[in-house]
Amino acid sequence: MKLEMICTGEEVLAGQIVDTNAAWFANALMEHGVECQRRITVGDRLQDLVAVFQERSTEADVIVVNGGLGPTSDDLSSEAMALAKGEPLVENKVWRERLDDWFTRNGRVMAESNLKQALIPESAIMIDNPVGTACGFAVKLNRAWLFFTPGVPFEFKQMVKEQFIPFINEMFEIAGDVALRKYLTLGQGESSLADALETIVLPEGITIGYRSSMPHIEIKLFARGKAAISEMDKIEAQIRFLLGTAIVANNKKSLAEEIHALLIDSGKTLSAAESCTGGMIASQLISHAGSSAYLDQGLVTYSNESKVKMLGVKPETLDDHGAVSIATVEEMAKGARAILDSDYALATSGIAGPTGGTEDKPVGTVAIALATRSGVYSQMIKLPRRSRDLVRSLSTAVAFDMLRRELLDEAVIVDYGSIKRFQK
Amino acid sequence: MKLEMICTGEEVLAGQIVDTNAAWFANALMEHGVECQRRITVGDRLQDLVAVFQERSTEADVIVVNGGLGPTSDDLSSEAMALAKGEPLVENKVWRERLDDWFTRNGRVMAESNLKQALIPESAIMIDNPVGTACGFAVKLNRAWLFFTPGVPFEFKQMVKEQFIPFINEMFEIAGDVALRKYLTLGQGESSLADALETIVLPEGITIGYRSSMPHIEIKLFARGKAAISEMDKIEAQIRFLLGTAIVANNKKSLAEEIHALLIDSGKTLSAAESCTGGMIASQLISHAGSSAYLDQGLVTYSNESKVKMLGVKPETLDDHGAVSIATVEEMAKGARAILDSDYALATSGIAGPTGGTEDKPVGTVAIALATRSGVYSQMIKLPRRSRDLVRSLSTAVAFDMLRRELLDEAVIVDYGSIKRFQK
Repeated sequence: MKLEMICTGEEVLAGQIVDTNAAWFANALMEHGVECQRRITVGDRLQDLVAVFQERSTEADVIVVNGGLGPTSDDLSSEAMALAKGEPLVENKVWRERLDDWFTRNGRVMAESNLKQALIPESAIMIDNPVGTACGFAVKLNRAWLFFTPGVPFEFKQMVKEQFIPFINEMFEIAGDVALRKYLTLGQGESSLADALETIVLPEGITIGYRSSMPHIEIKLFARGKAAISEMDKIEAQIRFLLGTAIVANNKKSLAEEIHALLIDSGKTLSAAESCTGGMIASQLISHAGSSAYLDQGLVTYSNESKVKMLGVKPETLDDHGAVSIATVEEMAKGARAILDSDYALATSGIAGPTGGTEDKPVGTVAIALATRSGVYSQMIKLPRRSRDLVRSLSTAVAFDMLRRELLDEAVIVDYGSIKRFQK
Repeated sequence: MKLEMICTGEEVLAGQIVDTNAAWFANALMEHGVECQRRITVGDRLQDLVAVFQERSTEADVIVVNGGLGPTSDDLSSEAMALAKGEPLVENKVWRERLDDWFTRNGRVMAESNLKQALIPESAIMIDNPVGTACGFAVKLNRAWLFFTPGVPFEFKQMVKEQFIPFINEMFEIAGDVALRKYLTLGQGESSLADALETIVLPEGITIGYRSSMPHIEIKLFARGKAAISEMDKIEAQIRFLLGTAIVANNKKSLAEEIHALLIDSGKTLSAAESCTGGMIASQLISHAGSSAYLDQGLVTYSNESKVKMLGVKPETLDDHGAVSIATVEEMAKGARAILDSDYALATSGIAGPTGGTEDKPVGTVAIALATRSGVYSQMIKLPRRSRDLVRSLSTAVAFDMLRRELLDEAVIVDYGSIKRFQK
């Protein structure tokens, strides 16, 4: 089965929207063992849409069309498909009723423009959308089934999962027997990871891929076929041996997700005192439901005054060593832990840039500490030539990794390829 | 000039990377008055790349090709272009020397694989990349100039700004006389904004576009041609009249950016006490360089104990009214402001979900307060049927808007179309 995707909408083509639907879709299909072979993004010009539907319908078996089903005048997917197929648009009675119900149920008045959303090409099969006002539909043209989906991300995702995947499962026999494992790495670039793994001889059907997801590079181990799947453990062991401490999580999207799971499992509690990371540690954890079970509090102690008053950092420590120092960040962590007697506290203090660096402590210098009930671990890292956001997100990742290693009873301070440390 | 973009890379096609380069590129070109007419995303298969280069080179005048210039075996853009053109790859001496220098300068050893990055098609013009190891190049094929660029975002952006835009400026006469204004809105959906603005009669050359950038919808007013540009003030006045309080910022990417500018201008200071927004208020401000000038501290007081101990919220207030209440959030804001005697403090407390709701206070109930030197403003809003992240980001936006309105001496509490309030 040859699958393609057509993304419509001036706002997507013109870069007003980053097209997260396309990435999500390809990723979701890949996990079912189906590769999307080409993706075409076009604007809202009627003749461009008609041309691309006609052109690709002779090349692909299935084309997912995303967007252009909304109520406004620049939503033209239905009309373009009707023209491409040479048939009229007709009002779908079932969907018209659903629209009336939907607005009544949500206590809203239907705008005139929403009526258009019940118009689909005459030969189209209507596809249900239980969470929005745009129905999907499927039309056969030339070699291809064109499957039209709404642009709103959560409507699109639900339609793909509940309607599109069953649809292609029924129409085509989807290649099964695929498996995917993901490893999140920290502190090495893509080419040095690739060089490190070059010696692995990959069996037929197994591929290794890399994706940059700052501050991480994710490694994907993909296997197609039973024989390949049975080799995965062996390959994984080789990857782990070659990369050592660079791997910081398995099958997780972020280190925060890993910490969230580990803290919930362990029943331990955490506080954070953040300066340069400025709320990132707390915010990344709180984005996971259930974080109130372990997160006592997060303090963004941005000013020196706040470090003294809230955390009990000694003014002499700030005077003698500066805000960005091992001494200060250790007092911050100990102070933050003590306030609510948390099991752990993480603290950061650094120079995120782009200004504020000195010769001794250039932009990208960050001190990080982890306080436990029995002591405090700390390190001061160097992140030169990184943007402000990257300094902050890398520092957050290193802080999380210190806590992760402590929770797993491993050495807390380790070397990460491209992240250098100041020697104490 | 007909401009297209080809994005290469299995990781982009397969959704392992969200293609932010494509959006950024189209946006940057649009601000120069050039529209990208089609974007095609293909994987790393050599024959697919050759086919798409040959096919599109007969349709477009300029094609920007992004990605596939790296050192690994799946980086095939150079090789595919050489095949498409029917010529060999040759080592570019200038670039080979630059590679040697680059690694020496950065104190790193060049991996064997990097040598490949100096190979470009014989007829190609090398394009400098001062910030990375992949040079760009330009090749003429059929009707089109193909302009090859690296996938690393900051290398790509620098090459587009410093090399590509001057390149097309020289080759083609770029249509000048374009202007773009952006308005950030809060609390109304795209279709209700579009319905509200439907009565505006747009002069020739002016278009209105919408882009969803949760928790906001951004309105773009685009004018092409001197006559159209001279009409923009009039159209803007109509948009402002029709949308009223829904517009919360001009030509800013986020409300945080607006607050950052307003606080720096006013010389006022801010503290935050966040519960459900969990660090988002502080973190969004700290992502802007210079935030240390006004942000005293941010407290993520997630537990009741933390609200009492850090902010001085009375235990009886929590007992009588609950953590999510006007009474609690007002005490949080007053307490947070008092600690370092900040000019303002924002406080939030709510139920972000997906669980934790009650009949009285369902998921999406959020109390928000702004404390000033002279008093406290508060409201409790309802955000039903939103995801956890959206509840948090909408609450952050409403909190910022309260502060924005206070700083501009406007009424602090206003109605936002789709965001309902609990009556006190």
